Amino acid sequence: MATFQSVVDRFTSLSISPKVVDHAPVKNNAEWSEALGQCDQASLPSSYVLTKTLVLKPKTAKTAPVTPVMVVALEATETNMSALGKKLSLKDLRFANEDLLSSFFGVTKEATSPFALDNVSAENISNVHLIVDAALFTVAEGTLIGFHPSASEKTSFLTLEEIRKYLESSSAKYTEVDFKALAAEAPAAKPQQPKAPKAAAKAQKPKPEEDSVKIGIEYRKEVDFPKWYQQVVTKSEMLEYYDVSGCYIIRPLAYNIWKYITDFFDAEIQELGVENTYFPMFVSSKVLEKEKDHVEGFAPEVAWVTKAGSSDLEEPIAIRPTSETVMYPYFAKWIRSHRDLPLKINQWCNVVRWEFKHPQPFLRTREFLWQEGHTAHLTKELASEEVFQILDLYRQVYEDLLAVPVIKGIKSEKEKFAGGLYTTTVEGFIPTTGRGIQGATSHCLGQNFAKMFNITVEDPNAPANAGDDAEAKKLFVWQNSWGITTRTIGVMVMVHGDDKGLIIPPRVASTQVIVVPCGLTVKSTDEDRRNVEEGVKEVVKILKSVGVRAKADLRENYTPGYKFNHWELRGTPLRLEIGPMDLAKKSTLSVRRDNGKKAPIPMASLATDVPALLQTIQKDMFANAKAVRDAHVKYVTEWKDFVPALNSRCSVMIPWCEEVQCEDDIKEKSSRNEEQEDEAEDERAPSMGAKSLCIPLEQPQDKPIVPGVTKCAACGADAKRWTLFGRSY
Amino acid sequence: MATFQSVVDRFTSLSISPKVVDHAPVKNNAEWSEALGQCDQASLPSSYVLTKTLVLKPKTAKTAPVTPVMVVALEATETNMSALGKKLSLKDLRFANEDLLSSFFGVTKEATSPFALDNVSAENISNVHLIVDAALFTVAEGTLIGFHPSASEKTSFLTLEEIRKYLESSSAKYTEVDFKALAAEAPAAKPQQPKAPKAAAKAQKPKPEEDSVKIGIEYRKEVDFPKWYQQVVTKSEMLEYYDVSGCYIIRPLAYNIWKYITDFFDAEIQELGVENTYFPMFVSSKVLEKEKDHVEGFAPEVAWVTKAGSSDLEEPIAIRPTSETVMYPYFAKWIRSHRDLPLKINQWCNVVRWEFKHPQPFLRTREFLWQEGHTAHLTKELASEEVFQILDLYRQVYEDLLAVPVIKGIKSEKEKFAGGLYTTTVEGFIPTTGRGIQGATSHCLGQNFAKMFNITVEDPNAPANAGDDAEAKKLFVWQNSWGITTRTIGVMVMVHGDDKGLIIPPRVASTQVIVVPCGLTVKSTDEDRRNVEEGVKEVVKILKSVGVRAKADLRENYTPGYKFNHWELRGTPLRLEIGPMDLAKKSTLSVRRDNGKKAPIPMASLATDVPALLQTIQKDMFANAKAVRDAHVKYVTEWKDFVPALNSRCSVMIPWCEEVQCEDDIKEKSSRNEEQEDEAEDERAPSMGAKSLCIPLEQPQDKPIVPGVTKCAACGADAKRWTLFGRSY
Ligand SMILES: [Zn+2]
Ligand SMILES: [Zn+2]
Repeated sequence: MATFQSVVDRFTSLSISPKVVDHAPVKNNAEWSEALGQCDQASLPSSYVLTKTLVLKPKTAKTAPVTPVMVVALEATETNMSALGKKLSLKDLRFANEDLLSSFFGVTKEATSPFALDNVSAENISNVHLIVDAALFTVAEGTLIGFHPSASEKTSFLTLEEIRKYLESSSAKYTEVDFKALAAEAPAAKPQQPKAPKAAAKAQKPKPEEDSVKIGIEYRKEVDFPKWYQQVVTKSEMLEYYDVSGCYIIRPLAYNIWKYITDFFDAEIQELGVENTYFPMFVSSKVLEKEKDHVEGFAPEVAWVTKAGSSDLEEPIAIRPTSETVMYPYFAKWIRSHRDLPLKINQWCNVVRWEFKHPQPFLRTREFLWQEGHTAHLTKELASEEVFQILDLYRQVYEDLLAVPVIKGIKSEKEKFAGGLYTTTVEGFIPTTGRGIQGATSHCLGQNFAKMFNITVEDPNAPANAGDDAEAKKLFVWQNSWGITTRTIGVMVMVHGDDKGLIIPPRVASTQVIVVPCGLTVKSTDEDRRNVEEGVKEVVKILKSVGVRAKADLRENYTPGYKFNHWELRGTPLRLEIGPMDLAKKSTLSVRRDNGKKAPIPMASLATDVPALLQTIQKDMFANAKAVRDAHVKYVTEWKDFVPALNSRCSVMIPWCEEVQCEDDIKEKSSRNEEQEDEAEDERAPSMGAKSLCIPLEQPQDKPIVPGVTKCAACGADAKRWTLFGRSY
Repeated sequence: MATFQSVVDRFTSLSISPKVVDHAPVKNNAEWSEALGQCDQASLPSSYVLTKTLVLKPKTAKTAPVTPVMVVALEATETNMSALGKKLSLKDLRFANEDLLSSFFGVTKEATSPFALDNVSAENISNVHLIVDAALFTVAEGTLIGFHPSASEKTSFLTLEEIRKYLESSSAKYTEVDFKALAAEAPAAKPQQPKAPKAAAKAQKPKPEEDSVKIGIEYRKEVDFPKWYQQVVTKSEMLEYYDVSGCYIIRPLAYNIWKYITDFFDAEIQELGVENTYFPMFVSSKVLEKEKDHVEGFAPEVAWVTKAGSSDLEEPIAIRPTSETVMYPYFAKWIRSHRDLPLKINQWCNVVRWEFKHPQPFLRTREFLWQEGHTAHLTKELASEEVFQILDLYRQVYEDLLAVPVIKGIKSEKEKFAGGLYTTTVEGFIPTTGRGIQGATSHCLGQNFAKMFNITVEDPNAPANAGDDAEAKKLFVWQNSWGITTRTIGVMVMVHGDDKGLIIPPRVASTQVIVVPCGLTVKSTDEDRRNVEEGVKEVVKILKSVGVRAKADLRENYTPGYKFNHWELRGTPLRLEIGPMDLAKKSTLSVRRDNGKKAPIPMASLATDVPALLQTIQKDMFANAKAVRDAHVKYVTEWKDFVPALNSRCSVMIPWCEEVQCEDDIKEKSSRNEEQEDEAEDERAPSMGAKSLCIPLEQPQDKPIVPGVTKCAACGADAKRWTLFGRSY
């Protein structure tokens, strides 16, 4: 196998000494970028680009010699395989499998780079088609080019001259290919079609206008969704990557959204008689492990503190992944009589779930912020009533605040909360990826935890014949728990954002209106400037006086265009432009972030028109998102239509039997296991199987399930209810 | 040595089988109570009392045989040693040292109980005076009596009959002593005098009136402050002890106070342009250890996560004790130009400092809630300006919200924040113990962290001759950090609480007014009841309509007296009573919690009188607390007056040289190291040395320091400023 040392030796023999940086081992380019982001930035070149090295194999007769194609390209280059195959007159180019990589190039998929060419035997080297991206040779002077030196946990940064030197020293002769020109010749890839070549996902947006080059989003939402998302959340300054993996910094723009959510939800639950408290984040292992199903659900993700200062703790102490077992021993102490019911408490806090899956900003993070409500009731009915009250508040958070449509429903047995009785959920949907996402859950825990933690009262409704028999009168309380997290922010970004960046609904925007001075030129007089500035300030003052969160952007040295991009990237719902002409007409020009519509608003009616327009934007954002979501829910009654519906990026509603085995089968039958996959999963056409998202509370009225007649679309047994299935986060 | 097994064998020989419970090893009765509080409550007897077993030694000739006194008493009994000595005609009774305990009784101080008598040799046993508290024999049937079975990590619970059986089986004959009667005969102990016997601190309040027995505070603030504090915070339902040591549950009554503080402070810092964010609570060791002085200050208290699920982490990850090192690498990234200054961020979060000192609710806890502000400025002047703006906000939190007087000042070099330039503080004072307490601190970090984390900008004011020399123009930013914690709540409790429980200032009381129906008797008609209830509801409605947080206590089955105690314990600032007579007069009776004053308020003027009265209460609480505090600040210019002032429970203001060595000497010279000490430190007369609390910003105008003339009261060198010293938390 290729080793890092052999690569270093080769560099030495070429008299080149590239900078080499160590980082976490990575599996694909997304992880690579993240790993570098987590390095000490001072150790990295001030300017660099990453590359990808793909090894492809044409379809050939089994007896023919292997003639692999190695493509060395800039990471962002769209390497259209079918166009390349056509150009090279090779048939059915596909990704080479690990065996070929290992036997032919002596390298693993993760660590592949042109340096693996050194491992190809002399008799084989002439069979290699070496293709180098023409864009690589246009990299600016001073910008270094990153490759894995046959080790996925390292990056060597070479100058263009150095990589050219290397390529020219190799026995494999390379061909320069202009992939952009190639793509223009080839028929356009159809991104909607799941069968489109996966590498098409790597398309970079054409360079945007000069003004926005530095601050704008370089990836298109529809083309490379993961990179788009990563850029939107970081460039908008919502979030910053952090040097502990799976943890992220929530910056003010995002934190403020969370604050609007907490303020709304907290006021609502106070009305329901819920009181706020704060429990310690540490749990002893004894207490954590008290409820078996529950701890099994969380144990693999629990973080353990074992040391303080330089002393080892006598027993490891867990950090709460959730607080059922933290709180309920005290419920047992505090609940002495049915008069202490209902007990309703809530806390706003951080929790830790040390996920080993690929982390994702807001959606899957090792530490996150949430509220967790925990309540105890005398009867199941009272508990259930609250479960649905809370569920509707969660719907309101998504629909009324974030303008994100959700479907209220009940989780299947397989998907419910570990240790609980039943789980209700609000399910969101990300149209770009066609994947469902759990928005927030409200659980009825039943009496299971009460039994484990011995939370009882004397039943006030015990039958008279119970007499003094304490056991007969003992009643285990009915409990609920419910939570909503900072995931909300990520869902909002994914649903509303566009190629210019964030779009924040007015209700959760800390800056609802940005007022920008415009129309000043070199010919403008100082008086013009002063007047425009005064006008801008006046507009802000008027808006603030009616409770609109408005701000002026009076920064000097920036063009209006730069400012437009700046605030568009940050999702500000409305922009008002004011220039000398507007002043003369006593008017302003409004530009909506959600749909770009422009309309003049007279100064005189700003105080009424702007609040009304913000309401309209809020309403329109929800209506549009709902129309898109609705178009992505397919009603299917026969299995043959199920996977095609999924593959068209839809969630699927089927009459369902509600059996666990059937759900397992659906997942299995709907996952696509292709032989060779691109290392970076194509977000637009995921291969994962579908799971049940929820059994909607609101069943379709026009397609009633007829008991004993309507059959499960998956297994043919009797169907119980329409159930929403989908690929999901 | 006595072993647990030998005690168990002895029980067996007596045919008694007491319940034995395991817990953490304890050093004194306070820890014992806490350790039991952390046990599974189901494993404890439903009713029990604890005991103390003291071993004393009279002054005798060195050649005389040792004649120790063993006193077995209920924990709460005041065992007046000098009165006991007088009764037994023994001179100068003092606590036996560890050597005597070990050689004579074969037991350690922590584990001492009457069962140690079995270890006394046959020739010595007749020399033991065994004294048993008469109160022990009055313990109610069904209440078990707890002793350490020669092991401080165990408690054996015996019935009265069982302990009597044991005592009677011993060769040592016991004498029953009524300590209460004894104390009545002896001259009263003077609690103000530091030389009063320490055991006097154990006085229990005489049983309160029947009605409040179950819910009231059993200890007097002036007599047993630590127990009083513990009972007030728990019985008022502010706080609950938790099964991880040093962690506590903050219950709604306390959490709401924190919420009023956060709402106030957060709004104020928004006005200053501070933005809220949330950084991960995990820090990599590499980053944590970047600033040397800083990490030295915190390292001994850092909690480390080393495991997730069942996997060991590659490197331990720290939980933030504070976030300087968490945030500043990102300051370096975000601050690119002087235009990015000032950068002002804040977060509300939990932090962990794994203290090994005795934990105390709110004041010293291993996890606590706080805000931490972190800012960067272009110049020292701008940074300093903010340091003092924030400091004054902290003063407002204490004085205007919590009605607790504080002194603003600067910390000495020895007491300043590790790694910072200078630290400012608001210093509170607990009159009952005579100890100062740091309220909140606002640090100017100078450029030290900026240098460690390379946070620089190009100096916009660089001299023209710097030209293009980037080094010459590089300017390290000036940084501040500032924080206030949930400690605030504990200080408020200690300053205002009284023997009835909490007293909460109106501005931070979630229930400002409780309205209680009164004057109903068995003779009252249903109509009377209905009318009174209507009246109560009407009053609440009126008060709520003018923004007063009012509540009705309409619980059935509870007497008005019970309700008065309930709300007094919880510190509700104002009570309104309404009975049939009041209704007839269209009036209510108001009762102030702070001073008990009663006054009628006509229904017609409730909407104005009650808000005004709440303001008066707030003002009076502060004025009273300030008068008491002021009376406890002694101005001293000669060393001979220093320790006596401390010992009269005062803090001491001296002209001071500000030298570190002098501060060390003051601490040394003012600590009292007595040979034998009661295991429970007497809170009213602590032995710890004094440290500097602060150099007050406001120096006494009438006693100016004359440079070169005024001398340091401690060392005689030239004094710089008046400085406040004291024993402190
Ligand atoms: Zn089925
Ligand atoms: Zn001195």
